[in-house]
Amino acid sequence: MEIFRKVSDMQAFAKNAIREGKKIALVPTMGFLHEGHLSLIDRACKEADVVIVSIFVNPTQFGPTEDLDKYPRDFQRDKDLCEARGASAIFAPEPSEMYAPDRSIWVDEEKLSKKLCGKSRPIHFRGVCTVVSKLFNICLPDVAIFGQKDAQQALIIKRMVRDLNFPIEIIVSPLIREASGLAMSSRNKYLTAEQKEDALSLSRSLKTAEKMIAKDGLSACGAAVEAMRAEITTCNGEIDYIECLDSSTLEEPTDKTTELLIALAVKFGTTRLIDNILIGV
Amino acid sequence: MEIFRKVSDMQAFAKNAIREGKKIALVPTMGFLHEGHLSLIDRACKEADVVIVSIFVNPTQFGPTEDLDKYPRDFQRDKDLCEARGASAIFAPEPSEMYAPDRSIWVDEEKLSKKLCGKSRPIHFRGVCTVVSKLFNICLPDVAIFGQKDAQQALIIKRMVRDLNFPIEIIVSPLIREASGLAMSSRNKYLTAEQKEDALSLSRSLKTAEKMIAKDGLSACGAAVEAMRAEITTCNGEIDYIECLDSSTLEEPTDKTTELLIALAVKFGTTRLIDNILIGV
Repeated sequence: MEIFRKVSDMQAFAKNAIREGKKIALVPTMGFLHEGHLSLIDRACKEADVVIVSIFVNPTQFGPTEDLDKYPRDFQRDKDLCEARGASAIFAPEPSEMYAPDRSIWVDEEKLSKKLCGKSRPIHFRGVCTVVSKLFNICLPDVAIFGQKDAQQALIIKRMVRDLNFPIEIIVSPLIREASGLAMSSRNKYLTAEQKEDALSLSRSLKTAEKMIAKDGLSACGAAVEAMRAEITTCNGEIDYIECLDSSTLEEPTDKTTELLIALAVKFGTTRLIDNILIGV
Repeated sequence: MEIFRKVSDMQAFAKNAIREGKKIALVPTMGFLHEGHLSLIDRACKEADVVIVSIFVNPTQFGPTEDLDKYPRDFQRDKDLCEARGASAIFAPEPSEMYAPDRSIWVDEEKLSKKLCGKSRPIHFRGVCTVVSKLFNICLPDVAIFGQKDAQQALIIKRMVRDLNFPIEIIVSPLIREASGLAMSSRNKYLTAEQKEDALSLSRSLKTAEKMIAKDGLSACGAAVEAMRAEITTCNGEIDYIECLDSSTLEEPTDKTTELLIALAVKFGTTRLIDNILIGV
């Protein structure tokens, strides 16, 4: 497995693979890999000849009061995991390699990014779109794999690929949970044992909401969200949002809606967790 | 020569050329081609095996009061010219093929685009960056040729390629003038005979400024701009801007400046013309 720190080296590797007629898959990550990430690598290995995992804690998608500095990192462990799961290369640049001091170009999404996490993280998706555009141009993949855990991100990246005509197929791979139901996240590391127990209210309440909507359809959305709100608050969760939206537009569901996204962001102590579920209607 | 109207057909052609190991050059234009454009095609033919000319009057780079609707078009003539100059393909999509009704992604430059033309055309360079990103992803060139006529555009596109890591070399080809000195432009078609005569004051005054700066160096910038202003005003030009800046930063020249850009935008009647000159210092 190759490890690249420089944009030019990564791009040369990718161009060479293309010249050899190989299909490239990219798995963009911020490292500190868990089984969720590894399931994306597994999917990438099924899709392509060459699998590139990028490991980059992207400063431009963190707000000034967010956890950029304490975001967990363990490159040696990530490297071993990537190698064991069959990745061909890791791209792990320093921030200074990715961003020039006088950089002045942003890729911005102006509709979907205003909803859900965008309300409390106003610059987040601009940072994501910009860095993912860069990673696409550096790694030149035929296919890129994103996790359904970051449902809004996956939707925005698909929109970006459509609107900027990137010659790339986006695959969204299912959310992976611990046996307890807790959605896997690098940020779970921040939780105390007690907070981790409290955080089970997220997946539990999503299941409750799913049952209510399976029984009564769209009309149950309001009550389902209220039930979730009650359960999570009881478990000491500080709710940023819980919303039940059309999964393709992130607008209120209408009679044209065929799939719902129930998405939430909740803080336990200082740790902000997200989770979601898709429900066909 | 192939003509493509659909993004998917153009992208398939480009991917196929890449698979065959060919080098692709892109010449992005808004059509109504003149010798300035044709010199870009000539340069592209020297650089690559496959030369794609895009012809697209991009609505997102025109402001609401600008000349989108009356912008001159003559596809048959453009097609014949491209073929005669050795282009391999034309990409000429309709606006509806390029922009979905619910499009929501923009590529934006936030520093260089605030200067010069950006002051009176605030959305112009956002439209340019967005459409050029799209054309890059659709035509997949190794090299793209832009004209020095649009000096600010060329600088912003180079910045975009650097900041988003497009795997593309940008070549900026010299400004081409008519024998009279008038910079070639599709918009020259709008000028009456008298306005065309008046518009010669642009190139004439740039030459005057060049001589003043050749003689007295950077310290002559202010006087040179004033002399230009007087000459152009005398010839009925309504000045949008005349500026003498560092050609790489578009900031006021400093002792680190090695090249000046004198750039201007001037209206004759309702027709807005731009012109510029580079001066080593």
